[in-house]
Amino acid sequence: MNATPALPRSAVIREVGLRDGLQAIARTLPTEQKKAWLRGAHAAGLREVEVGSFVPARYLPQLADTAELVVYGKTLPGLFVSVLVPNLRGAEAAIASGADLMLVPLSASHAHSLANLRKTPDEVVADVARIRAARDAVGSKILLEGGMSTAFGCTIQGEVKHSEVLRLLQALLDAGCDRVSLADTVGYADPAAVQSLFEAARKLAGDKLWAGHFHDTRGLGLANVYAALQTGITRFDACLAGIGGCPHAPGASGNVSTEDLAWMLRSMGIETGLDIDALLALRQQVAGWLDGEALHGTLWRAGLPKTLRPAPDNLSHAAKR
Amino acid sequence: MNATPALPRSAVIREVGLRDGLQAIARTLPTEQKKAWLRGAHAAGLREVEVGSFVPARYLPQLADTAELVVYGKTLPGLFVSVLVPNLRGAEAAIASGADLMLVPLSASHAHSLANLRKTPDEVVADVARIRAARDAVGSKILLEGGMSTAFGCTIQGEVKHSEVLRLLQALLDAGCDRVSLADTVGYADPAAVQSLFEAARKLAGDKLWAGHFHDTRGLGLANVYAALQTGITRFDACLAGIGGCPHAPGASGNVSTEDLAWMLRSMGIETGLDIDALLALRQQVAGWLDGEALHGTLWRAGLPKTLRPAPDNLSHAAKR
Repeated sequence: MNATPALPRSAVIREVGLRDGLQAIARTLPTEQKKAWLRGAHAAGLREVEVGSFVPARYLPQLADTAELVVYGKTLPGLFVSVLVPNLRGAEAAIASGADLMLVPLSASHAHSLANLRKTPDEVVADVARIRAARDAVGSKILLEGGMSTAFGCTIQGEVKHSEVLRLLQALLDAGCDRVSLADTVGYADPAAVQSLFEAARKLAGDKLWAGHFHDTRGLGLANVYAALQTGITRFDACLAGIGGCPHAPGASGNVSTEDLAWMLRSMGIETGLDIDALLALRQQVAGWLDGEALHGTLWRAGLPKTLRPAPDNLSHAAKR
Repeated sequence: MNATPALPRSAVIREVGLRDGLQAIARTLPTEQKKAWLRGAHAAGLREVEVGSFVPARYLPQLADTAELVVYGKTLPGLFVSVLVPNLRGAEAAIASGADLMLVPLSASHAHSLANLRKTPDEVVADVARIRAARDAVGSKILLEGGMSTAFGCTIQGEVKHSEVLRLLQALLDAGCDRVSLADTVGYADPAAVQSLFEAARKLAGDKLWAGHFHDTRGLGLANVYAALQTGITRFDACLAGIGGCPHAPGASGNVSTEDLAWMLRSMGIETGLDIDALLALRQQVAGWLDGEALHGTLWRAGLPKTLRPAPDNLSHAAKR
């Protein structure tokens, strides 16, 4: 196998299609289809899924069934269930739901933060401290992740300085986050910027730097994942069929696609535990439910390379290469 | 600027749309449109262009005007004009045409070589030696590049061993190539494989290792470019609008797109001398000529990040970041 020593031996894909993907799509998928999606994801080997967001249903009716999905997700053996929470009220719902992790988004861009959350980044940090206190007060074991969005720039504000991202990252840790992650919400990141910022963030947060979240808006999603892998990051958000976006980020459609990321990792000999054929079958099912929506990704069309398909003469590609 | 020390300060994009792109498209672009494409490419700052292929017109009628395009290309100040030649007869035409470089393709995959060129790889090496002798005999200064295709695997044969690629690379150098390059013709490469093979090839070929040629068939084109950049490669083939493919490589449509690659390099602070707005305008023009064909790329839809657009408050992004 060709994996360079600098690359990790294994990585985790966190499927966020049910949250980041579906919130960008106007139609509401029936809960039964979402459950089928969860079953399919679990069957394909995904063990971390963000199932929804505890926001008022009037803002995101597509995600109004989040509590039910948490409960269902926890019936699937070994599934680690995440939810997004925008504030203390959402966090209380997440704690009550039985989810394993709640992610609080914080925009490193002041302008994006005001547009998206109607709060400054530092007000969000104060919320995070309150959320941490509320969790601890009830003795809940739910993990608290601070998810830094627009970490590489913003369509409203433009530049976001690395120094500001790192300042807010430290503030999130100080406020009690168990985990922090960095997101390129609008597809502004390039691999060199990813390598630079993730390296600096790792120095600051150590193993609490949990995940990278990349949008493929300008075609660099997987290049950015590769750059982050080289800094030791081993957890990546992705959406089946590359759906997703941000209502306050024009043109920002498309998370990295779960199936394309899975193939890249497998090709490099990085263990994910995923069954790519099962992912592709699930993608086809989801594509049927989302008929007419903009889907992305490449592997579904091109198929796995012959070198990665099990065949009598090629049962152990990694060992033979 | 965030460019890590491991990345080169500048890079060259060789536009191969007029050859690799158009040979995959059934319609024949009028010569005047191709000349306009060349003018536009030159005006956008591209200084290396592969304008066509000296193959019998009955095989590729789309490229029958290659000699005329070489002559026209040489009227554009500073343009380095390449052509592809499949054999000695093609090389003689290239030498007579006044081109600056002729690229002889060699498939590292034995099966692909037989299907595509009706010769074994070693027979092609023998051809290369004859081509070198013919060039030297007439005192031509045209450079000779050995372009190793299917270097990362093949849709017919499957696996292509790195050891075989390196053996053939050495054979090409021994046969008199001034330059060698590696191509992922069918989109089988991953960044770790790219890093591994290009590092080994560089040890063997030194500065004669000239270029990387990546198809985006499975979404990894730009990730693979990033991996190759890290090994010191500074020249990449690309096609405007991501056109291109191989008749013997099903589903292999799509070179990396010139405009997406240009934005990635610029974002990382790697000099290319390219005017991305001019590239996008040219893409729009070419897309008009190729109406109905499958085009690729992302930047044309999303636009450059605000951080890279010149604006009163952001005149020097690289210096400010």
